[in-house]
Amino acid sequence: MRRAATFVAAPTLVGAATSVAAPAASAAVRQYWVAAVDVTWNQVPNGHDAIMGATYSPAETVFPTVVYRRYSRGWRHPMRNAPAGSSNQDLIPGPLIHARVGDTILVHFKNLDFGFGRPHSMHFHGVDYKPSSDGAYVPGFSGRDADVKPGQSYTYTLHARSDSFGVWPYHDHSPSMDESIMGGMYGMLSILGPGERPPDREFEVVFAPQGQFQTIDARAFVGNTPVFTSVVGQTVQWDVMAMGSEHHTFHVHGHRWLDSSGTPMDTRTVGPAETFAIRWKEQSPGTWLYHCHVEAHMMAGMIGIYRVRRK
Amino acid sequence: MRRAATFVAAPTLVGAATSVAAPAASAAVRQYWVAAVDVTWNQVPNGHDAIMGATYSPAETVFPTVVYRRYSRGWRHPMRNAPAGSSNQDLIPGPLIHARVGDTILVHFKNLDFGFGRPHSMHFHGVDYKPSSDGAYVPGFSGRDADVKPGQSYTYTLHARSDSFGVWPYHDHSPSMDESIMGGMYGMLSILGPGERPPDREFEVVFAPQGQFQTIDARAFVGNTPVFTSVVGQTVQWDVMAMGSEHHTFHVHGHRWLDSSGTPMDTRTVGPAETFAIRWKEQSPGTWLYHCHVEAHMMAGMIGIYRVRRK
Amino acid sequence: MRRAATFVAAPTLVGAATSVAAPAASAAVRQYWVAAVDVTWNQVPNGHDAIMGATYSPAETVFPTVVYRRYSRGWRHPMRNAPAGSSNQDLIPGPLIHARVGDTILVHFKNLDFGFGRPHSMHFHGVDYKPSSDGAYVPGFSGRDADVKPGQSYTYTLHARSDSFGVWPYHDHSPSMDESIMGGMYGMLSILGPGERPPDREFEVVFAPQGQFQTIDARAFVGNTPVFTSVVGQTVQWDVMAMGSEHHTFHVHGHRWLDSSGTPMDTRTVGPAETFAIRWKEQSPGTWLYHCHVEAHMMAGMIGIYRVRRK
Repeated sequence: MRRAATFVAAPTLVGAATSVAAPAASAAVRQYWVAAVDVTWNQVPNGHDAIMGATYSPAETVFPTVVYRRYSRGWRHPMRNAPAGSSNQDLIPGPLIHARVGDTILVHFKNLDFGFGRPHSMHFHGVDYKPSSDGAYVPGFSGRDADVKPGQSYTYTLHARSDSFGVWPYHDHSPSMDESIMGGMYGMLSILGPGERPPDREFEVVFAPQGQFQTIDARAFVGNTPVFTSVVGQTVQWDVMAMGSEHHTFHVHGHRWLDSSGTPMDTRTVGPAETFAIRWKEQSPGTWLYHCHVEAHMMAGMIGIYRVRRK
Repeated sequence: MRRAATFVAAPTLVGAATSVAAPAASAAVRQYWVAAVDVTWNQVPNGHDAIMGATYSPAETVFPTVVYRRYSRGWRHPMRNAPAGSSNQDLIPGPLIHARVGDTILVHFKNLDFGFGRPHSMHFHGVDYKPSSDGAYVPGFSGRDADVKPGQSYTYTLHARSDSFGVWPYHDHSPSMDESIMGGMYGMLSILGPGERPPDREFEVVFAPQGQFQTIDARAFVGNTPVFTSVVGQTVQWDVMAMGSEHHTFHVHGHRWLDSSGTPMDTRTVGPAETFAIRWKEQSPGTWLYHCHVEAHMMAGMIGIYRVRRK
Repeated sequence: MRRAATFVAAPTLVGAATSVAAPAASAAVRQYWVAAVDVTWNQVPNGHDAIMGATYSPAETVFPTVVYRRYSRGWRHPMRNAPAGSSNQDLIPGPLIHARVGDTILVHFKNLDFGFGRPHSMHFHGVDYKPSSDGAYVPGFSGRDADVKPGQSYTYTLHARSDSFGVWPYHDHSPSMDESIMGGMYGMLSILGPGERPPDREFEVVFAPQGQFQTIDARAFVGNTPVFTSVVGQTVQWDVMAMGSEHHTFHVHGHRWLDSSGTPMDTRTVGPAETFAIRWKEQSPGTWLYHCHVEAHMMAGMIGIYRVRRK
């Protein structure tokens, strides 16, 4: 039998051969340094839609944009946004923010968008905060948290409560929200329950339209979208989210999982700002597709490769 | 910890500090008088999209339409469609129909649409009824319940069964259904389980497109859509539904809730004629946004303000 | 009380008056012979949209396409794709593949598409298989299973595991996937849990756009879409799925069911390649509508009749 379980509701189904819980960590304060920076982005680095046999020139796939970039403590140097193998190893999505229920998270945000010169912000889902850390622009109500101008900084104070476990989106909610989200200013929080073990591998899948393409982590077509990998015996976690204006259906070939009430699934709807995390333990090797099952989206680039190697 | 619970599946999580159940009421017959009436409607009364800074003239936002309007027993005088603070305090959505599992509900419907002169009907979800109270037009099968002509009346007999608790849509399902729903002929039933306490505050959020706007309770943009309010310590219930042809994602800033299997959420998909109710107890003051997280919908008006005041 | 239960998560709620479980069958090998064949298809055989009063000529509704067709053991003669009363009694959807948890399923596929001369394949959801039975085209990775050319055959070996119970899609995932799915190359697997009784009646509802119409089992409008029937006292199961690029909401008039966590519903979202099965026991006679509640889809044909007869 393939062991499959949702992340949040049936953790005891995963890794039954090992002890289920790691020792509970005591509550921590976790700090992240995140800047909005101008970059040049290529949606289709290899210029190729391998499945349909089409080619794209850089003129069609390269554009200037603004992204969230992680920095080390005190802004000393830029860092990877996510561990190796979790996303496209580049700048979209933004930093993967890890915490555990009980933690306080401080996100130090600095707007270095001098190219477009737009205001930006960070609005976080799933965590508890005061209105002053909401980061959402409402004329007459919101403050500096929602409208951080180029050169300015703001620190968001967030609390991972008992109902904060799972994965959640964050994104720009400033006056420039609309262009910023289209450009890639979004990322995820991944919050463990008390005593919950992290998975062996964690994959970030963000479905979002971008210009003419339907992208995963802002890349389109097999070979440009992330190639996720694992080894037989590993517990893998898929963090799935959508941004934009469309609904999607996430599907992985050759695998099933249980929803939080125990129903088997292999395809699940995810709409804008919805998120879910699923886990399973790999049983056998294979090269598989993962994709959005909305046909027009798959054809426009929302598809990638997942490889499970022999132990 | 913020206490959060879905309405229907985990009622014991709400209001744990008080006794959970009110004494069970005995089964009742509840009667409502509802007319289809011609009105003039303004989608953007203040003429303003405060977030984007756009203005709209009445020529763009005012139009004649037909709505469901509540009357007192025996049609003596028109009434509010919902208690103060539950919707836009006006005519869309239609009367909020309250009942409890075990009740019989009689809805006396009269078509006073002499302006357009169209047939109308009421079709109810979630309750049990004979085909003669279905209210849905099928040529060759359906009867007067589905095709109430101007000047005519019909009484629908509905039963709230043990699987009728929760919130549900009703809407026109007559031959004029398509124009009627676009015009605002929809509303909600809100049915309590046996012994279940009503919330302190109940908010109706109906997502529906209307002309060029994406509306909540047929109003577009912050300040036109309902401003919902509560006080710290109150249990609030959000009744969420969609009508039309699009899927939405409901999001409230600064809050989380548990789905019916115990998974935390703060954003949830709702498609045409789907409904859900969520409850939580307010812990702290704040001014928040609630909105559809489909970006194009939020930009086209599907966003509002929620204020929690100090006790 | 109307007894209602989801198929997968609360089987003991169904048929409580009878013994719940049939004796567990031992694991079986089930074989199906399925060919891709050219046919001529009519989306609106009666030429009529009865609800809106529109008529359609064959020039608008008849077209050549390719479908999955079931054959008897060893390809001796063509068979019905589904038992009487389960679908449109014709060729779309493809063969209804029945199995039970523990079974191995061998699907012998032959491409007889000599009209269009396209490659085809079968990709199955919900079951366990080696990559060589995946049936999905990925240049550089996939083999003959994903690209069966006209005149060729391939046998897919599938295993119904403990997390395979429920209903699942299958569809063409070859290089011609896009046209094939639009043309009707999709079907369902229906897999019983250990000891689970089959329902008295099983209905296949596949929502998919096809040209200008929104179809159920590739037919549009009342009287063309399947007329499902049952008798009071029977347990009926609805197998619901979507294909294409849109999300839908499935609704049956006059009935409710419980989702897998016990929440009552009568309308449920289903996106591309999502599936669900629901069951209930009929309590009283009636003629009802079932339809997609996305209004534009219902108006474009996604609606049908369900009749419950007196015992």
